[in-house]
Amino acid sequence: MTRTVYLNGDYLPETEAKVSIFDRAFLMADGVYEVTSVLDSKLIDFDGHAKRLKRSLNALHMDMPMTRDDLLGIHRELVRANDLENGMIYLQITRGAPGDRDFVFPDPETCPQTVVLFTQSKPDLADSPAAKKGIKVVSIDDIRWGRRDIKSVQLLYPSMGKMMAKAQGADDAWMVEDGFVTEGTSNNAYFIKDNKIITRGLSNDILHGITRAAVLRFAAEAQMDVEERNFTIEEAQSADEAFITSATTFVMPVVAIDGKALGNGTPGPRAARLREIYLDESCKAAI
Amino acid sequence: MTRTVYLNGDYLPETEAKVSIFDRAFLMADGVYEVTSVLDSKLIDFDGHAKRLKRSLNALHMDMPMTRDDLLGIHRELVRANDLENGMIYLQITRGAPGDRDFVFPDPETCPQTVVLFTQSKPDLADSPAAKKGIKVVSIDDIRWGRRDIKSVQLLYPSMGKMMAKAQGADDAWMVEDGFVTEGTSNNAYFIKDNKIITRGLSNDILHGITRAAVLRFAAEAQMDVEERNFTIEEAQSADEAFITSATTFVMPVVAIDGKALGNGTPGPRAARLREIYLDESCKAAI
Repeated sequence: MTRTVYLNGDYLPETEAKVSIFDRAFLMADGVYEVTSVLDSKLIDFDGHAKRLKRSLNALHMDMPMTRDDLLGIHRELVRANDLENGMIYLQITRGAPGDRDFVFPDPETCPQTVVLFTQSKPDLADSPAAKKGIKVVSIDDIRWGRRDIKSVQLLYPSMGKMMAKAQGADDAWMVEDGFVTEGTSNNAYFIKDNKIITRGLSNDILHGITRAAVLRFAAEAQMDVEERNFTIEEAQSADEAFITSATTFVMPVVAIDGKALGNGTPGPRAARLREIYLDESCKAAI
Repeated sequence: MTRTVYLNGDYLPETEAKVSIFDRAFLMADGVYEVTSVLDSKLIDFDGHAKRLKRSLNALHMDMPMTRDDLLGIHRELVRANDLENGMIYLQITRGAPGDRDFVFPDPETCPQTVVLFTQSKPDLADSPAAKKGIKVVSIDDIRWGRRDIKSVQLLYPSMGKMMAKAQGADDAWMVEDGFVTEGTSNNAYFIKDNKIITRGLSNDILHGITRAAVLRFAAEAQMDVEERNFTIEEAQSADEAFITSATTFVMPVVAIDGKALGNGTPGPRAARLREIYLDESCKAAI
Protein backbone atom coordinates (compact mmCIF):
# COMPACT_ATOMS: atom_id res chain seq x y z
CA MET A 1 0.00 0.00 0.00
CA THR A 2 1.24 3.46 -0.83
CA ARG A 3 1.20 5.68 2.21
CA THR A 4 -0.56 8.99 2.25
CA VAL A 5 1.77 11.60 3.67
CA TYR A 6 1.30 15.26 4.57
CA LEU A 7 3.44 17.94 2.96
CA ASN A 8 2.79 21.67 3.31
CA GLY A 9 -0.99 21.48 3.38
CA ASP A 10 -1.42 18.59 0.96
CA TYR A 11 -2.11 14.92 1.49
CA LEU A 12 -0.07 13.09 -1.13
CA PRO A 13 1.02 9.58 -2.12
CA GLU A 14 4.44 9.09 -0.52
CA THR A 15 6.14 8.75 -3.91
CA GLU A 16 5.02 12.26 -4.85
CA ALA A 17 6.13 13.90 -1.61
CA LYS A 18 9.22 15.86 -2.58
CA VAL A 19 10.98 18.93 -1.30
CA SER A 20 13.20 21.45 -3.04
CA ILE A 21 16.93 20.78 -3.12
CA PHE A 22 17.17 24.21 -1.48
CA ASP A 23 15.26 23.07 1.59
CA ARG A 24 17.35 24.02 4.62
CA ALA A 25 16.96 20.57 6.16
CA PHE A 26 18.43 18.98 3.04
CA LEU A 27 21.30 21.46 2.72
CA MET A 28 22.13 22.23 6.35
CA ALA A 29 20.12 20.09 8.76
CA ASP A 30 18.06 23.11 9.74
CA GLY A 31 14.96 21.34 10.96
CA VAL A 32 13.38 19.68 13.98
CA TYR A 33 11.24 16.59 14.36
CA GLU A 34 9.01 14.58 16.66
CA VAL A 35 7.82 10.98 16.61
CA THR A 36 4.49 10.10 18.19
CA SER A 37 3.37 6.53 18.74
CA VAL A 38 -0.02 5.26 17.68
CA LEU A 39 -1.68 2.39 19.52
CA ASP A 40 -5.19 1.22 18.67
CA SER A 41 -5.30 4.17 16.24
CA LYS A 42 -4.84 6.64 19.07
CA LEU A 43 -1.98 9.04 19.72
CA ILE A 44 0.28 8.44 22.71
CA ASP A 45 1.52 11.54 24.60
CA PHE A 46 0.50 13.86 21.75
CA ASP A 47 0.57 16.98 23.89
CA GLY A 48 3.99 16.19 25.29
CA HIS A 49 5.38 15.94 21.77
CA ALA A 50 3.61 19.11 20.64
CA LYS A 51 5.09 20.99 23.60
CA ARG A 52 8.61 19.73 22.96
CA LEU A 53 8.25 20.58 19.28
CA LYS A 54 7.49 24.16 20.23
CA ARG A 55 10.52 24.18 22.55
CA SER A 56 12.83 22.91 19.78
CA LEU A 57 11.44 25.44 17.31
CA ASN A 58 11.86 28.29 19.79
CA ALA A 59 15.46 27.31 20.45
CA LEU A 60 16.13 27.68 16.73
CA HIS A 61 14.10 30.88 16.41
CA MET A 62 11.35 29.23 14.43
CA ASP A 63 7.62 29.58 15.02
CA MET A 64 5.03 26.86 15.44
CA PRO A 65 3.51 26.72 11.96
CA MET A 66 0.02 25.89 13.21
CA THR A 67 -2.09 25.49 16.33
CA ARG A 68 -2.01 22.41 18.50
CA ASP A 69 -5.50 21.51 17.22
CA ASP A 70 -4.50 21.80 13.57
CA LEU A 71 -1.46 19.63 14.26
CA LEU A 72 -3.66 17.08 16.00
CA GLY A 73 -6.04 17.17 13.02
CA ILE A 74 -3.24 16.26 10.60
CA HIS A 75 -2.06 13.43 12.85
CA ARG A 76 -5.59 12.06 13.01
CA GLU A 77 -6.18 12.41 9.29
CA LEU A 78 -2.99 10.46 8.59
CA VAL A 79 -4.10 7.71 10.98
CA ARG A 80 -7.43 7.57 9.16
CA ALA A 81 -6.09 7.80 5.59
CA ASN A 82 -3.51 5.08 6.23
CA ASP A 83 -5.76 2.91 8.34
CA LEU A 84 -3.02 2.97 10.94
CA GLU A 85 -3.66 0.81 13.97
CA ASN A 86 -0.21 0.56 15.55
CA GLY A 87 2.91 2.43 14.58
CA MET A 88 4.12 5.98 14.65
CA ILE A 89 3.75 9.37 13.07
CA TYR A 90 6.90 11.22 12.13
CA LEU A 91 6.74 15.01 11.96
CA GLN A 92 9.43 17.34 10.63
CA ILE A 93 9.49 21.11 10.38
CA THR A 94 12.27 22.89 8.53
CA ARG A 95 13.13 26.53 8.03
CA GLY A 96 11.86 26.11 4.47
CA ALA A 97 13.36 26.34 1.02
CA PRO A 98 14.73 29.78 0.19
CA GLY A 99 15.69 30.38 -3.42
CA ASP A 100 19.35 29.74 -2.75
CA ARG A 101 21.81 28.33 -0.23
CA ASP A 102 22.95 30.78 2.43
CA PHE A 103 24.08 30.37 6.05
CA VAL A 104 21.98 33.42 6.90
CA PHE A 105 18.46 32.43 7.96
CA PRO A 106 15.84 33.26 5.31
CA ASP A 107 13.10 35.75 6.13
CA PRO A 108 10.12 33.74 7.43
CA GLU A 109 7.81 36.25 5.70
CA THR A 110 8.97 35.15 2.27
CA CYS A 111 10.20 31.64 3.05
CA PRO A 112 7.47 29.47 4.58
CA GLN A 113 8.51 26.52 6.70
CA THR A 114 8.38 23.00 5.29
CA VAL A 115 6.03 20.76 7.26
CA VAL A 116 6.13 17.01 6.62
CA LEU A 117 4.34 14.18 8.40
CA PHE A 118 4.25 10.50 7.55
CA THR A 119 3.18 7.27 9.19
CA GLN A 120 5.09 4.10 9.87
CA SER A 121 3.07 0.97 10.53
CA LYS A 122 4.39 -1.42 13.22
CA PRO A 123 1.67 -3.97 13.99
CA ASP A 124 3.60 -5.38 16.98
CA LEU A 125 4.70 -2.01 18.40
CA ALA A 126 3.30 -2.63 21.89
CA ASP A 127 3.64 -6.38 21.84
CA SER A 128 7.22 -6.24 20.66
CA PRO A 129 9.32 -9.43 20.58
CA ALA A 130 12.37 -7.30 21.50
CA ALA A 131 10.71 -6.28 24.77
CA LYS A 132 10.43 -9.96 25.76
CA LYS A 133 14.04 -10.71 24.87
CA GLY A 134 15.63 -7.41 25.83
CA ILE A 135 18.26 -5.59 23.80
CA LYS A 136 22.05 -5.51 23.90
CA VAL A 137 23.88 -2.21 23.91
CA VAL A 138 27.51 -1.22 23.41
CA SER A 139 29.17 2.01 24.47
CA ILE A 140 30.52 4.53 21.98
CA ASP A 141 31.96 8.02 22.36
CA ASP A 142 29.37 10.77 22.33
CA ILE A 143 30.70 13.22 19.75
CA ARG A 144 27.41 14.94 18.92
CA TRP A 145 26.90 18.68 19.06
CA GLY A 146 26.21 20.37 22.39
CA ARG A 147 22.46 21.03 22.04
CA ARG A 148 20.99 17.56 22.17
CA ASP A 149 17.97 18.96 24.00
CA ILE A 150 16.93 20.45 20.66
CA LYS A 151 15.40 17.63 18.65
CA SER A 152 17.11 18.61 15.40
CA VAL A 153 17.58 16.42 12.35
CA GLN A 154 21.35 16.34 12.89
CA LEU A 155 21.18 12.57 13.27
CA LEU A 156 24.20 11.48 11.31
CA TYR A 157 26.14 10.36 14.37
CA PRO A 158 23.24 8.54 16.04
CA SER A 159 22.75 6.72 12.75
CA MET A 160 26.47 5.88 12.62
CA GLY A 161 26.19 4.75 16.25
CA LYS A 162 23.41 2.34 15.36
CA MET A 163 25.69 0.89 12.67
CA MET A 164 28.61 0.61 15.13
CA ALA A 165 26.32 -1.31 17.47
CA LYS A 166 25.19 -3.65 14.71
CA ALA A 167 28.80 -4.24 13.69
CA GLN A 168 29.40 -5.55 17.22
CA GLY A 169 26.31 -7.74 17.15
CA ALA A 170 24.39 -5.40 19.45
CA ASP A 171 21.07 -3.62 19.00
CA ASP A 172 21.92 -0.10 20.01
CA ALA A 173 24.65 2.11 21.46
CA TRP A 174 24.89 4.13 24.67
CA MET A 175 26.92 7.24 24.20
CA VAL A 176 29.60 8.25 26.70
CA GLU A 177 31.01 11.71 27.24
CA ASP A 178 33.65 12.64 29.80
CA GLY A 179 33.28 9.18 31.29
CA PHE A 180 29.52 9.32 31.79
CA VAL A 181 26.64 7.87 29.80
CA THR A 182 24.57 10.55 28.08
CA GLU A 183 21.86 8.52 26.33
CA GLY A 184 21.15 5.94 23.61
CA THR A 185 21.15 6.79 19.91
CA SER A 186 17.44 7.60 20.02
CA ASN A 187 16.41 6.94 23.61
CA ASN A 188 17.18 7.75 27.24
CA ALA A 189 19.26 5.29 29.31
CA TYR A 190 18.59 3.90 32.82
CA PHE A 191 19.71 1.25 35.22
CA ILE A 192 18.11 -0.11 38.38
CA LYS A 193 20.14 -0.93 41.47
CA ASP A 194 18.69 -1.80 44.89
CA ASN A 195 15.21 -0.86 43.72
CA LYS A 196 16.31 2.60 42.62
CA ILE A 197 16.15 3.91 39.04
CA ILE A 198 19.23 5.88 38.04
CA THR A 199 19.19 8.08 34.96
CA ARG A 200 21.11 11.14 33.85
CA GLY A 201 19.58 14.49 34.79
CA LEU A 202 18.16 16.88 32.21
CA SER A 203 20.49 19.41 30.57
CA ASN A 204 21.57 20.40 27.06
CA ASP A 205 23.48 17.10 26.96
CA ILE A 206 20.47 14.85 26.41
CA LEU A 207 17.05 14.83 24.85
CA HIS A 208 14.28 15.65 27.30
CA GLY A 209 12.36 12.47 26.64
CA ILE A 210 8.58 12.64 26.73
CA THR A 211 8.50 8.96 27.65
CA ARG A 212 11.26 9.59 30.19
CA ALA A 213 9.10 12.16 32.01
CA ALA A 214 6.12 9.79 32.07
CA VAL A 215 8.12 6.78 33.23
CA LEU A 216 9.74 8.71 36.07
CA ARG A 217 6.26 9.82 37.14
CA PHE A 218 5.07 6.19 37.10
CA ALA A 219 8.06 4.91 39.07
CA ALA A 220 6.37 5.48 42.41
CA GLU A 221 3.50 3.29 41.27
CA ALA A 222 6.05 0.52 40.77
CA GLN A 223 7.47 1.16 44.27
CA MET A 224 10.75 2.48 42.94
CA ASP A 225 12.83 5.53 43.82
CA VAL A 226 14.38 7.68 41.16
CA GLU A 227 17.77 9.34 41.23
CA GLU A 228 18.82 11.66 38.41
CA ARG A 229 22.60 11.81 38.19
CA ASN A 230 25.56 10.98 35.98
CA PHE A 231 26.62 7.35 35.81
CA THR A 232 29.32 5.29 34.11
CA ILE A 233 29.12 2.22 31.90
CA GLU A 234 30.81 0.20 34.66
CA GLU A 235 28.17 1.19 37.18
CA ALA A 236 25.37 0.27 34.79
CA GLN A 237 27.08 -3.07 34.07
CA SER A 238 26.89 -3.93 37.74
CA ALA A 239 23.19 -3.06 37.98
CA ASP A 240 20.29 -5.40 38.66
CA GLU A 241 18.51 -4.27 35.52
CA ALA A 242 18.77 -1.66 32.79
CA PHE A 243 16.43 -0.24 30.21
CA ILE A 244 15.85 2.50 27.68
CA THR A 245 12.81 4.65 27.00
CA SER A 246 11.62 6.39 23.86
CA ALA A 247 8.34 7.26 22.20
CA THR A 248 8.48 4.14 20.06
CA THR A 249 10.18 1.58 22.31
CA PHE A 250 8.29 2.73 25.46
CA VAL A 251 10.26 0.92 28.18
CA MET A 252 12.67 -1.56 26.61
CA PRO A 253 14.80 -3.83 28.81
CA VAL A 254 18.56 -3.86 28.25
CA VAL A 255 20.09 -7.28 28.99
CA ALA A 256 23.76 -6.68 28.15
CA ILE A 257 26.13 -3.71 28.12
CA ASP A 258 29.41 -4.02 26.22
CA GLY A 259 29.10 -7.81 26.29
CA LYS A 260 28.46 -8.02 30.03
CA ALA A 261 25.10 -9.66 30.77
CA LEU A 262 22.93 -8.00 33.41
CA GLY A 263 21.52 -10.34 36.05
CA ASN A 264 20.79 -13.61 34.25
CA GLY A 265 20.74 -11.92 30.83
CA THR A 266 16.97 -11.74 30.53
CA PRO A 267 14.64 -8.76 31.03
CA GLY A 268 14.26 -7.83 34.67
CA PRO A 269 10.90 -7.73 36.46
CA ARG A 270 11.00 -4.03 37.27
CA ALA A 271 11.59 -2.89 33.70
CA ALA A 272 8.80 -5.21 32.60
CA ARG A 273 6.52 -3.74 35.24
CA LEU A 274 7.40 -0.16 34.21
CA ARG A 275 6.64 -1.04 30.60
CA GLU A 276 3.28 -2.45 31.61
CA ILE A 277 2.36 0.60 33.66
CA TYR A 278 3.53 2.99 30.94
CA LEU A 279 1.53 1.21 28.25
CA ASP A 280 -1.57 0.94 30.46
CA GLU A 281 -1.54 4.57 31.52
CA SER A 282 -0.57 5.95 28.13
CA CYS A 283 -3.23 4.00 26.28
CA LYS A 284 -5.81 5.22 28.78
CA ALA A 285 -4.74 8.82 28.16
CA ALA A 286 -4.30 8.40 24.38
CA ILE A 287 -6.30 10.72 22.12
CA MET B 1 17.13 33.54 -15.17
CA THR B 2 16.20 30.09 -13.93
CA ARG B 3 19.28 28.08 -13.11
CA THR B 4 19.89 24.69 -14.59
CA VAL B 5 20.86 22.29 -11.83
CA TYR B 6 22.02 18.68 -11.85
CA LEU B 7 20.08 16.01 -9.97
CA ASN B 8 20.75 12.29 -10.28
CA GLY B 9 21.71 12.28 -13.95
CA ASP B 10 19.34 14.98 -15.13
CA TYR B 11 19.82 18.65 -15.88
CA LEU B 12 16.70 20.42 -14.66
CA PRO B 13 15.31 23.89 -14.06
CA GLU B 14 16.02 24.66 -10.40
CA THR B 15 12.29 24.87 -9.59
CA GLU B 16 11.83 21.25 -10.66
CA ALA B 17 14.79 19.88 -8.71
CA LYS B 18 13.22 18.03 -5.82
CA VAL B 19 14.17 15.13 -3.62
CA SER B 20 12.09 12.62 -1.72
CA ILE B 21 11.09 13.47 1.84
CA PHE B 22 12.79 10.16 2.68
CA ASP B 23 16.16 11.40 1.48
CA ARG B 24 18.64 10.76 4.28
CA ALA B 25 20.06 14.26 4.05
CA PHE B 26 16.60 15.73 4.64
CA LEU B 27 15.73 13.36 7.52
CA MET B 28 19.08 12.88 9.23
CA ALA B 29 21.80 15.06 7.70
CA ASP B 30 23.40 12.01 6.12
CA GLY B 31 25.24 13.69 3.29
CA VAL B 32 28.46 15.46 2.36
CA TYR B 33 29.20 18.45 0.19
CA GLU B 34 31.85 20.51 -1.55
CA VAL B 35 31.91 24.02 -2.95
CA THR B 36 34.20 24.84 -5.86
CA SER B 37 34.83 28.37 -7.03
CA VAL B 38 34.54 29.39 -10.66
CA LEU B 39 36.60 32.29 -12.02
CA ASP B 40 36.55 33.22 -15.70
CA SER B 41 34.37 30.13 -16.20
CA LYS B 42 37.13 27.85 -14.92
CA LEU B 43 37.20 25.65 -11.83
CA ILE B 44 39.52 26.54 -8.97
CA ASP B 45 41.20 23.64 -7.12
CA PHE B 46 38.81 21.10 -8.63
CA ASP B 47 41.02 18.12 -7.88
CA GLY B 48 41.51 19.19 -4.27
CA HIS B 49 37.75 19.28 -3.77
CA ALA B 50 37.24 15.95 -5.56
CA LYS B 51 39.84 14.34 -3.30
CA ARG B 52 38.32 15.74 -0.13
CA LEU B 53 34.88 14.65 -1.29
CA LYS B 54 36.17 11.09 -1.57
CA ARG B 55 37.68 11.38 1.91
CA SER B 56 34.39 12.60 3.42
CA LEU B 57 32.43 9.84 1.66
CA ASN B 58 34.88 7.18 2.82
CA ALA B 59 34.63 8.38 6.41
CA LEU B 60 30.86 7.81 6.21
CA HIS B 61 31.21 4.48 4.36
CA MET B 62 29.86 5.88 1.13
CA ASP B 63 31.35 5.38 -2.34
CA MET B 64 32.22 7.99 -4.91
CA PRO B 65 29.20 7.84 -7.22
CA MET B 66 31.22 8.56 -10.35
CA THR B 67 34.72 9.04 -11.70
CA ARG B 68 36.65 12.27 -11.30
CA ASP B 69 36.21 12.90 -15.04
CA ASP B 70 32.43 12.43 -14.91
CA LEU B 71 32.28 14.80 -11.94
CA LEU B 72 34.37 17.33 -13.83
CA GLY B 73 32.06 16.94 -16.83
CA ILE B 74 29.00 17.83 -14.74
CA HIS B 75 30.75 20.85 -13.25
CA ARG B 76 31.69 22.05 -16.73
CA GLU B 77 28.25 21.43 -18.17
CA LEU B 78 26.70 23.50 -15.34
CA VAL B 79 29.16 26.33 -16.03
CA ARG B 80 28.18 26.19 -19.71
CA ALA B 81 24.42 25.79 -19.24
CA ASN B 82 24.28 28.68 -16.76
CA ASP B 83 26.75 30.86 -18.59
CA LEU B 84 28.63 31.11 -15.30
CA GLU B 85 31.60 33.42 -15.36
CA ASN B 86 32.29 33.95 -11.65
CA GLY B 87 30.70 32.18 -8.74
CA MET B 88 30.66 28.70 -7.32
CA ILE B 89 29.38 25.19 -7.84
CA TYR B 90 27.81 23.45 -4.88
CA LEU B 91 27.85 19.66 -4.85
CA GLN B 92 26.04 17.39 -2.40
CA ILE B 93 25.97 13.62 -2.16
CA THR B 94 23.61 11.87 0.22
CA ARG B 95 23.09 8.24 1.17
CA GLY B 96 19.93 8.37 -0.94
CA ALA B 97 16.25 8.00 -0.28
CA PRO B 98 15.28 4.60 1.07
CA GLY B 99 11.58 3.80 1.18
CA ASP B 100 11.33 4.68 4.84
CA ARG B 101 13.10 6.36 7.73
CA ASP B 102 15.53 4.14 9.62
CA PHE B 103 18.75 4.84 11.55
CA VAL B 104 20.22 1.74 9.91
CA PHE B 105 22.04 2.62 6.69
CA PRO B 106 20.14 1.50 3.58
CA ASP B 107 21.72 -1.07 1.25
CA PRO B 108 23.58 0.88 -1.45
CA GLU B 109 22.60 -1.84 -3.94
CA THR B 110 18.95 -0.90 -3.69
CA CYS B 111 19.23 2.70 -2.54
CA PRO B 112 21.26 4.83 -4.96
CA GLN B 113 22.91 7.96 -3.65
CA THR B 114 21.39 11.36 -4.32
CA VAL B 115 23.75 13.60 -6.28
CA VAL B 116 22.93 17.30 -6.57
CA LEU B 117 24.95 20.14 -8.07
CA PHE B 118 23.96 23.75 -8.58
CA THR B 119 25.65 27.02 -9.45
CA GLN B 120 25.70 30.34 -7.61
CA SER B 121 26.67 33.38 -9.64
CA LYS B 122 28.85 35.99 -7.86
CA PRO B 123 30.11 38.45 -10.47
CA ASP B 124 32.48 40.12 -7.98
CA LEU B 125 33.76 36.91 -6.39
CA ALA B 126 37.46 37.66 -6.95
CA ASP B 127 37.13 41.43 -6.88
CA SER B 128 35.14 41.40 -3.67
CA PRO B 129 34.38 44.68 -1.86
CA ALA B 130 34.66 42.77 1.44
CA ALA B 131 38.28 41.88 0.66
CA LYS B 132 39.12 45.59 0.38
CA LYS B 133 37.36 46.46 3.63
CA GLY B 134 38.08 43.32 5.61
CA ILE B 135 35.56 41.52 7.82
CA LYS B 136 34.76 41.63 11.51
CA VAL B 137 34.48 38.43 13.52
CA VAL B 138 33.19 37.61 16.97
CA SER B 139 33.96 34.54 19.05
CA ILE B 140 31.34 31.93 19.93
CA ASP B 141 31.55 28.55 21.64
CA ASP B 142 32.28 25.68 19.29
CA ILE B 143 29.58 23.14 20.12
CA ARG B 144 29.66 21.20 16.84
CA TRP B 145 30.10 17.45 16.61
CA GLY B 146 33.57 15.95 16.85
CA ARG B 147 34.19 15.10 13.17
CA ARG B 148 34.48 18.49 11.55
CA ASP B 149 37.04 17.05 9.16
CA ILE B 150 34.12 15.29 7.46
CA LYS B 151 32.40 17.92 5.31
CA SER B 152 28.89 16.81 6.27
CA VAL B 153 25.71 18.83 5.86
CA GLN B 154 25.32 19.13 9.65
CA LEU B 155 25.55 22.90 9.31
CA LEU B 156 22.86 24.01 11.71
CA TYR B 157 25.30 25.41 14.25
CA PRO B 158 27.53 27.19 11.72
CA SER B 159 24.35 28.77 10.34
CA MET B 160 23.32 29.78 13.87
CA GLY B 161 26.84 31.12 14.38
CA LYS B 162 26.53 33.32 11.33
CA MET B 163 23.30 34.73 12.80
CA MET B 164 24.97 35.30 16.20
CA ALA B 165 27.71 37.26 14.40
CA LYS B 166 25.17 39.35 12.50
CA ALA B 167 23.29 40.07 15.73
CA GLN B 168 26.51 41.61 17.05
CA GLY B 169 27.06 43.64 13.90
CA ALA B 170 29.88 41.36 12.73
CA ASP B 171 30.33 39.40 9.52
CA ASP B 172 31.28 35.98 10.82
CA ALA B 173 32.13 34.01 13.95
CA TRP B 174 35.29 32.22 15.07
CA MET B 175 34.49 29.18 17.15
CA VAL B 176 36.33 28.48 20.39
CA GLU B 177 36.70 25.11 22.09
CA ASP B 178 38.59 24.48 25.33
CA GLY B 179 39.94 28.01 25.11
CA PHE B 180 41.34 27.73 21.59
CA VAL B 181 40.03 28.90 18.24
CA THR B 182 39.00 26.03 15.98
CA GLU B 183 37.84 27.80 12.82
CA GLY B 184 35.26 30.14 11.31
CA THR B 185 31.71 29.07 10.50
CA SER B 186 32.75 28.08 6.97
CA ASN B 187 36.44 28.93 6.79
CA ASN B 188 39.81 28.40 8.44
CA ALA B 189 41.20 31.07 10.79
CA TYR B 190 44.68 32.64 10.88
CA PHE B 191 46.63 35.49 12.36
CA ILE B 192 50.00 36.97 11.48
CA LYS B 193 52.47 38.08 14.13
CA ASP B 194 56.08 39.09 13.49
CA ASN B 195 55.85 37.90 9.89
CA LYS B 196 54.69 34.44 10.92
CA ILE B 197 51.32 32.91 9.99
CA ILE B 198 49.71 31.03 12.88
CA THR B 199 46.83 28.65 12.25
CA ARG B 200 45.45 25.62 14.05
CA GLY B 201 46.90 22.27 12.99
CA LEU B 202 44.85 19.66 11.16
CA SER B 203 42.83 17.14 13.17
CA ASN B 204 39.22 15.99 13.46
CA ASP B 205 38.50 19.37 15.08
CA ILE B 206 38.56 21.41 11.88
CA LEU B 207 37.89 21.16 8.19
CA HIS B 208 40.96 20.36 6.15
CA GLY B 209 40.63 23.39 3.92
CA ILE B 210 41.64 23.04 0.30
CA THR B 211 42.35 26.76 0.19
CA ARG B 212 44.21 26.44 3.52
CA ALA B 213 46.59 23.88 2.03
CA ALA B 214 47.25 26.08 -1.01
CA VAL B 215 47.74 29.26 1.01
CA LEU B 216 50.20 27.59 3.39
CA ARG B 217 52.15 26.37 0.34
CA PHE B 218 52.21 29.92 -1.04
CA ALA B 219 53.33 31.49 2.24
CA ALA B 220 57.02 31.06 1.42
CA GLU B 221 56.48 33.00 -1.77
CA ALA B 222 55.24 35.87 0.40
CA GLN B 223 58.32 35.54 2.63
CA MET B 224 56.32 34.30 5.60
CA ASP B 225 56.82 31.41 8.01
CA VAL B 226 53.97 29.18 9.03
CA GLU B 227 53.31 27.69 12.44
CA GLU B 228 50.44 25.27 12.93
CA ARG B 229 49.32 25.30 16.55
CA ASN B 230 46.45 26.14 18.85
CA PHE B 231 45.82 29.80 19.61
CA THR B 232 43.44 31.88 21.69
CA ILE B 233 41.19 34.80 20.77
CA GLU B 234 43.36 37.06 22.94
CA GLU B 235 46.49 36.11 21.03
CA ALA B 236 44.78 36.73 17.69
CA GLN B 237 43.51 40.09 18.97
CA SER B 238 47.10 41.18 19.60
CA ALA B 239 48.24 40.13 16.11
CA ASP B 240 49.49 42.37 13.31
CA GLU B 241 46.92 40.95 10.91
CA ALA B 242 44.35 38.20 10.71
CA PHE B 243 42.48 36.49 7.91
CA ILE B 244 40.30 33.57 6.92
CA THR B 245 40.48 31.24 3.95
CA SER B 246 37.81 29.24 2.17
CA ALA B 247 37.04 28.11 -1.35
CA THR B 248 34.76 31.09 -1.93
CA THR B 249 36.42 33.87 0.09
CA PHE B 250 39.97 32.83 -0.93
CA VAL B 251 42.05 34.90 1.51
CA MET B 252 39.82 37.39 3.32
CA PRO B 253 41.33 39.91 5.77
CA VAL B 254 39.89 40.09 9.29
CA VAL B 255 40.06 43.62 10.71
CA ALA B 256 38.40 43.14 14.11
CA ILE B 257 37.96 40.31 16.60
CA ASP B 258 35.33 40.67 19.31
CA GLY B 259 35.27 44.43 18.78
CA LYS B 260 39.04 44.85 19.02
CA ALA B 261 40.48 46.36 15.84
CA LEU B 262 43.65 44.74 14.46
CA GLY B 263 46.41 47.17 13.55
CA ASN B 264 44.69 50.28 12.21
CA GLY B 265 41.47 48.39 11.47
CA THR B 266 42.10 48.00 7.76
CA PRO B 267 43.29 44.94 5.82
CA GLY B 268 46.95 44.22 6.36
CA PRO B 269 49.50 44.08 3.53
CA ARG B 270 50.46 40.44 4.07
CA ALA B 271 46.90 39.11 3.87
CA ALA B 272 46.37 41.20 0.74
CA ARG B 273 49.58 39.78 -0.74
CA LEU B 274 48.54 36.21 0.09
CA ARG B 275 45.17 36.81 -1.56
CA GLU B 276 46.88 38.10 -4.67
CA ILE B 277 49.26 35.13 -4.87
CA TYR B 278 46.45 32.66 -4.23
CA LEU B 279 44.25 34.15 -6.94
CA ASP B 280 47.11 34.39 -9.44
CA GLU B 281 48.32 30.85 -8.89
CA SER B 282 44.84 29.32 -8.68
CA CYS B 283 43.62 31.01 -11.82
CA LYS B 284 46.72 29.82 -13.66
CA ALA B 285 46.02 26.24 -12.52
CA ALA B 286 42.23 26.45 -13.01
CA ILE B 287 40.65 23.91 -15.33
